[in-house]
Amino acid sequence: MSENKYSRFVTEMQVRPDDIDLYRHVHSSRYMDYVLAARFDQMERCYGMSMQDFAARGLGWYQISFAINYRRALGLGERFLVETGVTGFAKATIQLLFSISRKTDGKLVADGTASYALIDLASRRATPIPPDVIEKYSI
Amino acid sequence: MSENKYSRFVTEMQVRPDDIDLYRHVHSSRYMDYVLAARFDQMERCYGMSMQDFAARGLGWYQISFAINYRRALGLGERFLVETGVTGFAKATIQLLFSISRKTDGKLVADGTASYALIDLASRRATPIPPDVIEKYSI
Amino acid sequence: MSENKYSRFVTEMQVRPDDIDLYRHVHSSRYMDYVLAARFDQMERCYGMSMQDFAARGLGWYQISFAINYRRALGLGERFLVETGVTGFAKATIQLLFSISRKTDGKLVADGTASYALIDLASRRATPIPPDVIEKYSI
Amino acid sequence: MSENKYSRFVTEMQVRPDDIDLYRHVHSSRYMDYVLAARFDQMERCYGMSMQDFAARGLGWYQISFAINYRRALGLGERFLVETGVTGFAKATIQLLFSISRKTDGKLVADGTASYALIDLASRRATPIPPDVIEKYSI
Repeated sequence: MSENKYSRFVTEMQVRPDDIDLYRHVHSSRYMDYVLAARFDQMERCYGMSMQDFAARGLGWYQISFAINYRRALGLGERFLVETGVTGFAKATIQLLFSISRKTDGKLVADGTASYALIDLASRRATPIPPDVIEKYSI
Repeated sequence: MSENKYSRFVTEMQVRPDDIDLYRHVHSSRYMDYVLAARFDQMERCYGMSMQDFAARGLGWYQISFAINYRRALGLGERFLVETGVTGFAKATIQLLFSISRKTDGKLVADGTASYALIDLASRRATPIPPDVIEKYSI
Repeated sequence: MSENKYSRFVTEMQVRPDDIDLYRHVHSSRYMDYVLAARFDQMERCYGMSMQDFAARGLGWYQISFAINYRRALGLGERFLVETGVTGFAKATIQLLFSISRKTDGKLVADGTASYALIDLASRRATPIPPDVIEKYSI
Repeated sequence: MSENKYSRFVTEMQVRPDDIDLYRHVHSSRYMDYVLAARFDQMERCYGMSMQDFAARGLGWYQISFAINYRRALGLGERFLVETGVTGFAKATIQLLFSISRKTDGKLVADGTASYALIDLASRRATPIPPDVIEKYSI
């Protein structure tokens, strides 16, 4: 995580019982849900433009890629921090990095990257990111 | 399951890895998902009016109650049968019973009842079930 | 909710994006997950005996019945309160009631009942609730 | 997908209602669940060594990385094919590629790579893949 151009934000969450899998730790796909949940929180709380705000303008975000490395597992009820940050923009897409760490000792649980395309909800097609959105996300 | 007025239909499904919980059997809330999945399948295949058909008429179904008794657990990868049947209609609601049984030996896994309200998707309010829908569901 | 013998406890939670369904509100089975998550929280925080404590004694809880009435839906990111309380004990089982309400206005989202059997994790069979557990849960 | 050393196998699945998200298509994390479900199926059906067989030897697989590109979305009830294949082995890990395609027209839905570490379930640590397992997976 060497990119320093844009801000990083942190969301605290807790493992839910239905996140636990046959190995009695968090199921691997739930970490992706955690990243999405953290972004939704940070969009509203940190960037000042929530998913509902986007929807009100007829816009949404589709995930177009996601890559994750698992370092250690979270267990039942554990609290953790999800840090995300923008690393770049293309015409209709935004790139992020993320890391998930255990709250009790700060140890790294997983990290990776994701990208999202801005979607016109009427046509369901990618659409250029409006300048005011880029500005809001360039903090 | 003594009501015999309406037909019962059966959908075969298989446990997915992400359904498994910390006890290494299917998480209790997933049985509700199985019932919903079976209904969606049977709406299209058996009643001749799929969820998409309802949506095309501006209609949807909201679950308004659900009661389940758990008899034995399903495990990883097990195949099972979900039987459902209509037990009655009210002005805007439909009542069902369901049972889930293991495919290998036919043993009962869970059973219960559910009810659904027909919703006008524009207003998000309950709306009377149209006569042609009652007819389709009265087989 | 007329039973007043035992204490009620409240857990605050927030809707996750992956809880949202095709109607853009919380999927009906997730309310069951919320009740389970609240119980896990309250077992540790309010009753002083967590699921991990049970597991350390070779014990676990299987849900044996669940009944829920849906009153109104939660949406993306909404905060809500899950109140649960013990309503009775049988030899190997415990009965609960629960209600889920929206945090912003306190309106009822769903309510219902659930029961759980204490399980010997080695045999996977129901086992009598030990006296000290009944005492802990009788507050 | 240029690697041709090892066999590819295909599992057919169907979207479940609880897989659908606020955009009315499959939630992005569920594609990972589909890949895992397909692997579990193929381990048993194609490689002749199921997850249960591994567990019986005190072994399990932890996902250690996953990367996915989303090409188009699946919708409610759609049938799809998950193709996976081994691309290589390291001492304690296995690498895979996967692709998910829509059944009706064969169009690509998503593709990517994943890797798994073989775990000694007692110690919860990575352990060298035994020669007979490598042989079974080298078809």
